[in-house]
Amino acid sequence: MDSVAAQNAPFSDLLILHGAIVFFLQVGFVSLEVGYGRSKNVKNILLKNTVNILLCAIVWWSVGYAFSFGVSTGGFIGTSGFFHDGSLGVVKIWFYSWNFCLATVAIVSGCLAERTSLVAYPLLTLVMASWVHPVASHWAWQRDSWLLGLSDECRFLDFAGGAAVHVCGGLMGLVGATIVGPRIGRFEEGRAKDIPGHDVSSAAIGTLFLWFGWFGFNCGTTYVYLGNMATAAAATSVDDGLSAPSSPPPPAGATGGNPADRVALNMTLTASVSSLTALLLSSLHSGTVDLVICCNALLAGLVMSTPACGFITSWAAVVYGLAGAGIYLGGARLLVRMHVDDPLESSVVHFACGTAGTVLLGFLARPAYVAQLTGYNCGGLVYGARKGGLLLGLQVLGVVAVAAWTGVFSVLVFWALRRAGRLRVDQVTELAGLDNMDHGGPAYPEFNLVPYNNGSGER
Amino acid sequence: MDSVAAQNAPFSDLLILHGAIVFFLQVGFVSLEVGYGRSKNVKNILLKNTVNILLCAIVWWSVGYAFSFGVSTGGFIGTSGFFHDGSLGVVKIWFYSWNFCLATVAIVSGCLAERTSLVAYPLLTLVMASWVHPVASHWAWQRDSWLLGLSDECRFLDFAGGAAVHVCGGLMGLVGATIVGPRIGRFEEGRAKDIPGHDVSSAAIGTLFLWFGWFGFNCGTTYVYLGNMATAAAATSVDDGLSAPSSPPPPAGATGGNPADRVALNMTLTASVSSLTALLLSSLHSGTVDLVICCNALLAGLVMSTPACGFITSWAAVVYGLAGAGIYLGGARLLVRMHVDDPLESSVVHFACGTAGTVLLGFLARPAYVAQLTGYNCGGLVYGARKGGLLLGLQVLGVVAVAAWTGVFSVLVFWALRRAGRLRVDQVTELAGLDNMDHGGPAYPEFNLVPYNNGSGER
Amino acid sequence: MDSVAAQNAPFSDLLILHGAIVFFLQVGFVSLEVGYGRSKNVKNILLKNTVNILLCAIVWWSVGYAFSFGVSTGGFIGTSGFFHDGSLGVVKIWFYSWNFCLATVAIVSGCLAERTSLVAYPLLTLVMASWVHPVASHWAWQRDSWLLGLSDECRFLDFAGGAAVHVCGGLMGLVGATIVGPRIGRFEEGRAKDIPGHDVSSAAIGTLFLWFGWFGFNCGTTYVYLGNMATAAAATSVDDGLSAPSSPPPPAGATGGNPADRVALNMTLTASVSSLTALLLSSLHSGTVDLVICCNALLAGLVMSTPACGFITSWAAVVYGLAGAGIYLGGARLLVRMHVDDPLESSVVHFACGTAGTVLLGFLARPAYVAQLTGYNCGGLVYGARKGGLLLGLQVLGVVAVAAWTGVFSVLVFWALRRAGRLRVDQVTELAGLDNMDHGGPAYPEFNLVPYNNGSGER
Repeated sequence: MDSVAAQNAPFSDLLILHGAIVFFLQVGFVSLEVGYGRSKNVKNILLKNTVNILLCAIVWWSVGYAFSFGVSTGGFIGTSGFFHDGSLGVVKIWFYSWNFCLATVAIVSGCLAERTSLVAYPLLTLVMASWVHPVASHWAWQRDSWLLGLSDECRFLDFAGGAAVHVCGGLMGLVGATIVGPRIGRFEEGRAKDIPGHDVSSAAIGTLFLWFGWFGFNCGTTYVYLGNMATAAAATSVDDGLSAPSSPPPPAGATGGNPADRVALNMTLTASVSSLTALLLSSLHSGTVDLVICCNALLAGLVMSTPACGFITSWAAVVYGLAGAGIYLGGARLLVRMHVDDPLESSVVHFACGTAGTVLLGFLARPAYVAQLTGYNCGGLVYGARKGGLLLGLQVLGVVAVAAWTGVFSVLVFWALRRAGRLRVDQVTELAGLDNMDHGGPAYPEFNLVPYNNGSGER
Repeated sequence: MDSVAAQNAPFSDLLILHGAIVFFLQVGFVSLEVGYGRSKNVKNILLKNTVNILLCAIVWWSVGYAFSFGVSTGGFIGTSGFFHDGSLGVVKIWFYSWNFCLATVAIVSGCLAERTSLVAYPLLTLVMASWVHPVASHWAWQRDSWLLGLSDECRFLDFAGGAAVHVCGGLMGLVGATIVGPRIGRFEEGRAKDIPGHDVSSAAIGTLFLWFGWFGFNCGTTYVYLGNMATAAAATSVDDGLSAPSSPPPPAGATGGNPADRVALNMTLTASVSSLTALLLSSLHSGTVDLVICCNALLAGLVMSTPACGFITSWAAVVYGLAGAGIYLGGARLLVRMHVDDPLESSVVHFACGTAGTVLLGFLARPAYVAQLTGYNCGGLVYGARKGGLLLGLQVLGVVAVAAWTGVFSVLVFWALRRAGRLRVDQVTELAGLDNMDHGGPAYPEFNLVPYNNGSGER
Repeated sequence: MDSVAAQNAPFSDLLILHGAIVFFLQVGFVSLEVGYGRSKNVKNILLKNTVNILLCAIVWWSVGYAFSFGVSTGGFIGTSGFFHDGSLGVVKIWFYSWNFCLATVAIVSGCLAERTSLVAYPLLTLVMASWVHPVASHWAWQRDSWLLGLSDECRFLDFAGGAAVHVCGGLMGLVGATIVGPRIGRFEEGRAKDIPGHDVSSAAIGTLFLWFGWFGFNCGTTYVYLGNMATAAAATSVDDGLSAPSSPPPPAGATGGNPADRVALNMTLTASVSSLTALLLSSLHSGTVDLVICCNALLAGLVMSTPACGFITSWAAVVYGLAGAGIYLGGARLLVRMHVDDPLESSVVHFACGTAGTVLLGFLARPAYVAQLTGYNCGGLVYGARKGGLLLGLQVLGVVAVAAWTGVFSVLVFWALRRAGRLRVDQVTELAGLDNMDHGGPAYPEFNLVPYNNGSGER
């Protein structure tokens, strides 16, 4: 094993660098959320997101990383590596995996902005970072999990977290937004009223920050797969007793180029097609060229591509983008119709698109790419894969499993918080702004503001 | 070839990481442009820049990358690799090259801000990203292009895009700014009136964002050269039939240290000398220490260094910086005198400095560095290069060729757009602000603004 | 030596990338300082910080890098590599080390914001970047320095700049803030009055920017140590005449995982524990959940970890975090009691925490990690190190030496500037705002501002 570790050192070195870039996602989330929020809640948003990062660090160090990547107990949960002090294998480094937990938690808290109690966030983070996400990520990524061990001929594919990050975070956020209820003034007399963000520049630049971080997220993950493949190959050559299927490598040329380049191309294409399509459709419909739709459909595309970008061709990435546009536009409309107030439309962007991107792999995964990165010889239905439908079945099962797991705990924890009266701030605080009530004053004390009031309740 | 690819894998891995950093240039461009714009056009700027990125992705995937780096047809244009699905060689990865196209396009759109029609941008981006830039970059960088094949003893040098990116983007922007015409109120009764940006903090931080991205741009490009040299060396050792001149490697010590470190040093020195010199001169002249001059002269220095930073010594980098300060100050004054309204002074920063930096190589390129990165034994006039003037001639020719190529299409497309009445927004929209007219409302709905009006036409 | 250089090329390649990330610290410092400042001084802050970067480049190129990493003269100062044109060894690349100088200088100027003369900054930067920091960093990091040569059995440990960067910058800032005196209105009739920053969002996002850059700072430094160890090992295998102690490598398993991952984990844990502890204590005390305390205690934790994160276990990182919270809260209170006005609390965050983090290593450094990264077999007192107290003595000595060295020149230069009447702007300028007086107008010309006045002197 020592020689393997030495040989693969570059993979973990690359992951350190990619991990730093992934950390930038947090800057993106906070810029986005601040921008879409109202000026009276800026400090609150900054504070809760920062505290989430800090808390996640302690939780991921103590238990999350172990539950996620430790040696599997019954295929359900990892049980080694608590209070981490050294990496759990060649490429499963703490720093890189911590950033995935951070992203999951940030998605949840985005859905709850501007009316949730400050006490609720750390509790939700604790549940998510110590339990819900680690177990989901164990199922999705740990070789010995029940989900990855279901078949010898194929495996559930979740490239960089369509299920383990986006379904998990987005669904908990959706449950939360529903149970917490809409911000005052968002829905009145059965009608939705837009609450425009106070600084769209911060939101749009935050979207680009997220894209930057996402390159670390998806491209970096390529090296996790390559590192695992190299480790398996080295182990085979030594003792020939390998747990991974020793399928022959794909024919030369079939997978030309650096796989991380394919990943970058695919995520870029999907995001671009998704955003441009949604922008075009919405502009034709409304006559307004809407920056928010451009940004959110872009993020929808990035989420769509996350479970898939290493496993599909660029043409499939275009299909993903078209699907992303449709799901985003439809989902956003559905949210409004259901009177769910999700200030960043995070639940659509993350939950709906994470689900769709994962399931679509059952149709579009290219066998040569799957083999290159996982060693399994299987692919999507359009490739007429030998056992048509096996991968699709696994994909559906995986998403349903993660969603069911997440849903149960989400309902439980939000219901408990509401019962305890700790979920939502009181009406006075919400109207006056969380910054004035809880955080010692406004975020922009020198600016003359005209607070946005669109609800009769605010007068 | 397979063994070569394997051996050089680290180069493309490094380029993925550098590519992510280069992507940050887009954050820089957008911060800069938002900051220098007026509050009434913020959403428009954010939207057009984001759409440019998205559109470039589709164009670069479908044709741009192939025209640029595909197998050369007649030395004029690449014709393989359409709808890219795998890298065109060891270091010509799609992701990295796409970011260069993005930069070129962003430069153009900066010159047109605050009065150009929203329809014009995608059309301009299409022309630039699918045709003008790919062909220019084919000439400048593809080994088999007519420009690089002119001489057996030397070649046109454009380290990271002085001609292919900055001359190309800056000249199209200059043509555009001239044909679109100045913003209302910029020139009145023969006098220029400053239109101050609404958020200088965003502009100055955007400048630092750009610098960060530029380290990826220039340092990363070092690995493209090193990767190409390693590939050529490996090919030689195998079949001894090499297209690149097999000049002896430079003597040990002559090129000490990591070449990417030299690149970082040189670009930093040039930017620093340029900015400090311009700031000092302008402060002595006007009595005001002007942040905009500091930032723009810094960018001028970065542009100057882009074609050169791998090929020159640090002393030459200082000379570059002094030249950059002079060109920036003189060019900015000339723009005003010619009544060209370029809100970010992009045409000076990019076109003039890109030209100067490329041509100056004919004097200052150090032979040992040229040999290290390209295999050619030639250098600038101050080194008394064997064939004095050959490199200088190639540099002038290269810049003139790229400028002529770009100029023709720039005039054509802007002229066509103006004839079609699609180039500029109407006066009412310009005065009311693009955000209110086209994008559904202001970017900062809660802030009490005092819109800047400096033109009588605005009253 | 050539083969060593070739073999270690990846280390310097990684440092180029980490160096770019460290550069982002400058974006962080400027965002932080702008956010905590008042709107009337925004341009001034942006300008002085940018000029500092530019000036540092010229100084570090010409002399700083040579004084710091050149061949040692008498163990006191380096004297080779002036006007750098090639790296001083395998991992001591110019670009990476320049960024450390930038950080040191930025710390100083943060303490002086909003009332210091524009002429003073370049002079201070000159003294710091050409003399004070290079010598301190020579002592702390250059193998042949008097400090590192004191003992054959152990050496002073300063992982990534607790003494050479944070003590050095923080102490000069503290001396400066004291001699410059408080901003008008900060202390009146013996009472401290808060001067809230004009844009807390910029400050908090700046804190996250800093954290991002800090990953480059600390994780990157790991490769400096690994590169030095690899060079030493290669030299030993060649000529067996090695200056570094050839202690046996630590037992396999004792140092499992990528050391850069340990670094990332430790700095994250310390920052998290520090910030959450300080936030909890202060919230219980005041009833307000204060974003500024959250951010500054986070930075305090990052500083604490800087000298230590490669050498300690994760449990020790938690202890570091607890200590960081206490030192930050106590130090901030002490500053106010002493009527020192440090707008960013930089002197506490950097000087006090840098000192504590360095000295604590004498107790908590883990021998196996010290051996892994330096080749020395020694550790902190809690490990019952063979020569208990030797390391602790060296740590105290190192910090005292750097502090004494810095203190002397700090007092001299600030005293000289004050005598020359060049240290502080006049009262009219300070009240009217530096932007209006020196920089041609306000930073946000379209925003309706209500300048913050909290001093009777301002009326």
